[in-house]
Amino acid sequence: MMSEGDGMSKTRFEAFSDGVFAFAITLLVLGIALQGFEGRPSEPQLVNALLRLWPAVLAYALSFAVIGIMWQNHQTLFHAVERIDRTTVFLNLLLLGATAFIPFVTGVLGTYGATRPGAFVYGLTLTASATFYNLLLWYLQRSGAFAPTLSPETIRQTVIGYRIGWCTYAGATILALFIPVVSYALYLVIAAYYLVPRGIDSDLDHP
Amino acid sequence: MMSEGDGMSKTRFEAFSDGVFAFAITLLVLGIALQGFEGRPSEPQLVNALLRLWPAVLAYALSFAVIGIMWQNHQTLFHAVERIDRTTVFLNLLLLGATAFIPFVTGVLGTYGATRPGAFVYGLTLTASATFYNLLLWYLQRSGAFAPTLSPETIRQTVIGYRIGWCTYAGATILALFIPVVSYALYLVIAAYYLVPRGIDSDLDHP
Amino acid sequence: MMSEGDGMSKTRFEAFSDGVFAFAITLLVLGIALQGFEGRPSEPQLVNALLRLWPAVLAYALSFAVIGIMWQNHQTLFHAVERIDRTTVFLNLLLLGATAFIPFVTGVLGTYGATRPGAFVYGLTLTASATFYNLLLWYLQRSGAFAPTLSPETIRQTVIGYRIGWCTYAGATILALFIPVVSYALYLVIAAYYLVPRGIDSDLDHP
Amino acid sequence: MMSEGDGMSKTRFEAFSDGVFAFAITLLVLGIALQGFEGRPSEPQLVNALLRLWPAVLAYALSFAVIGIMWQNHQTLFHAVERIDRTTVFLNLLLLGATAFIPFVTGVLGTYGATRPGAFVYGLTLTASATFYNLLLWYLQRSGAFAPTLSPETIRQTVIGYRIGWCTYAGATILALFIPVVSYALYLVIAAYYLVPRGIDSDLDHP
Repeated sequence: MMSEGDGMSKTRFEAFSDGVFAFAITLLVLGIALQGFEGRPSEPQLVNALLRLWPAVLAYALSFAVIGIMWQNHQTLFHAVERIDRTTVFLNLLLLGATAFIPFVTGVLGTYGATRPGAFVYGLTLTASATFYNLLLWYLQRSGAFAPTLSPETIRQTVIGYRIGWCTYAGATILALFIPVVSYALYLVIAAYYLVPRGIDSDLDHP
Repeated sequence: MMSEGDGMSKTRFEAFSDGVFAFAITLLVLGIALQGFEGRPSEPQLVNALLRLWPAVLAYALSFAVIGIMWQNHQTLFHAVERIDRTTVFLNLLLLGATAFIPFVTGVLGTYGATRPGAFVYGLTLTASATFYNLLLWYLQRSGAFAPTLSPETIRQTVIGYRIGWCTYAGATILALFIPVVSYALYLVIAAYYLVPRGIDSDLDHP
Repeated sequence: MMSEGDGMSKTRFEAFSDGVFAFAITLLVLGIALQGFEGRPSEPQLVNALLRLWPAVLAYALSFAVIGIMWQNHQTLFHAVERIDRTTVFLNLLLLGATAFIPFVTGVLGTYGATRPGAFVYGLTLTASATFYNLLLWYLQRSGAFAPTLSPETIRQTVIGYRIGWCTYAGATILALFIPVVSYALYLVIAAYYLVPRGIDSDLDHP
Repeated sequence: MMSEGDGMSKTRFEAFSDGVFAFAITLLVLGIALQGFEGRPSEPQLVNALLRLWPAVLAYALSFAVIGIMWQNHQTLFHAVERIDRTTVFLNLLLLGATAFIPFVTGVLGTYGATRPGAFVYGLTLTASATFYNLLLWYLQRSGAFAPTLSPETIRQTVIGYRIGWCTYAGATILALFIPVVSYALYLVIAAYYLVPRGIDSDLDHP
């Protein structure tokens, strides 16, 4: 009964994806490193060194939210998917590759967040993730991978939601070339916005 | 039959959480690093270098117990939960974010454990975790996510247990600003105490 | 009803393997490290430092594809396997050991990719992985571990496909001793080729 | 029907344990680090630097085998277990704590393997793991956690096998204080020996 390219175990597909999301989100902490000291630091020195880490901690919080949102979208999306084929695995791999890259750009953002290169490479990575999400959604829809009970209207709204997400990230990335601080602020606002439950993705759950 | 915001797969929710807990607990070992030597060290030099690592090893053991306890509580709590919604995912993400932060503060505690800043940031992270656990429990109870067979008395006792846990961590954190060594000792005592099976959480398992 | 050596849980076998694949693929990002600066770098300095990372990013992309393909093959192979015995676990451990080694050689390739030693150790690791895959397939076939519904023709084609894969990797590795740049290019071509769905492995899915 | 302390989900217990084993085994690769060079190294310099890494690679292979064996034993042991209680979780946490410590002592062994301190701390960690395995087996047996179909003879043989394992590791550890090279060789021999399927553990699988 299986058609060409079928048969990928959805369980292992999800387990592998969950693993990459979970490790990428936990690896973020390696971006926060206390400076070394010659000999034993005095207490004010140590307090200062810890306080100076706030940009790294802010970047940690932002990327934790970003990867958390991505995992949540992934979970919601594939909840409605019935078949995993090789193209899905390939597009998913691109998505995971962009996600697993986030710990690196988080380190850059945490150190050089207020600069144009720092805010730009961060945005570029998020835009890449959003691009792969849109491609994935487009392919799943085109290949009829969604459960038949899912209404076309729900899919259409999700497509619109994903496109808006892509535009917002791409816009913030371009803005980074001009006013990096505002771009950084936008990343924070977008993350905060997406953490709040949205109607579109919720709809996807109960067709 | 699903209500608004429902449909999150409990399997993937737990798999993702288990991944973060397991990864954070395994990352702790990176906090133990042997110093480099100019050329080949003599045997006594090497022995000394290894012995000087005891504070890092103690911090490792403490945090391993702490994250282990957190994972155990997480497992026990969600064993009794029937529905995962977006707010649960959000609060859980905050909890995981505080947990994934523990490897960093463990490094600080392992290097500067007897100092006020070292013991304070460690306690602050544990208090944050405890806060998110209490929020999570409060929300699960309020939203009726627990299995109907779970008695209100069991839930009430768990709430009390969680609040006591929060107070203990918050108290030890404040104490760190005055007598950091006693604060550190308290963290160890609390961890040792919670590793012993408690009646409250056990009750949660068999309503 | 279980025969000698049986009883390995396929679920845990796959979960452990998925964990190693997912973790190895996520660890790759640690191979991309921005250089340190004395004081605050100027914007052109930072841009230059980021652009100079392109060989590390290319190596990251290559190895992400390589490990992704390996995971996909693993998933496809064991989808058709009914019994896991100790020898399978042993050969699988060798395979995972070679896979988990990839982050190290990726770092070497990212830094010294155009050199003979860099391209050679990378190829050696991929050849080792391919060797263990061939051994695993040979053993699974010999021990009758495949589902009886799987046609001998499908297995034969998969064996041929795996042998060709081995030859390609071994050839590229030997080539690295003479023209490392071409060898590197070959790794990229092979990875790109295998990311496209192949008939042989697809067949394995629907006997 | 659940008795006091019951109700721990065996699925999540195994998933968490698999996670720690998989991450610890994959983290081993971080112990292999190519030295930095002032400027671009010549080809012979690079070859030499890579060849000088053989002790780190040997330690990697040894610890990969050791953790692989531990995971295999864990899988076999809990395959026969029906109930997970809090004491099991606690003893399992001690076991995982010793396992997650292996990447650190592997680094020490890889750098200072031929020295008494290097071989001793490595053996100490393996002996600790073996101790916790014996405690775990003792507790599981005492608390009647094994499936009733498992014959007492099978359990008795497993107990003997675990005790022999403990004695071997403890002996090799003590030997490290006198002839570290022989001790190191013993670790390799023991690992190679245990990788071959043993009758005792296989028996445990099919009562």
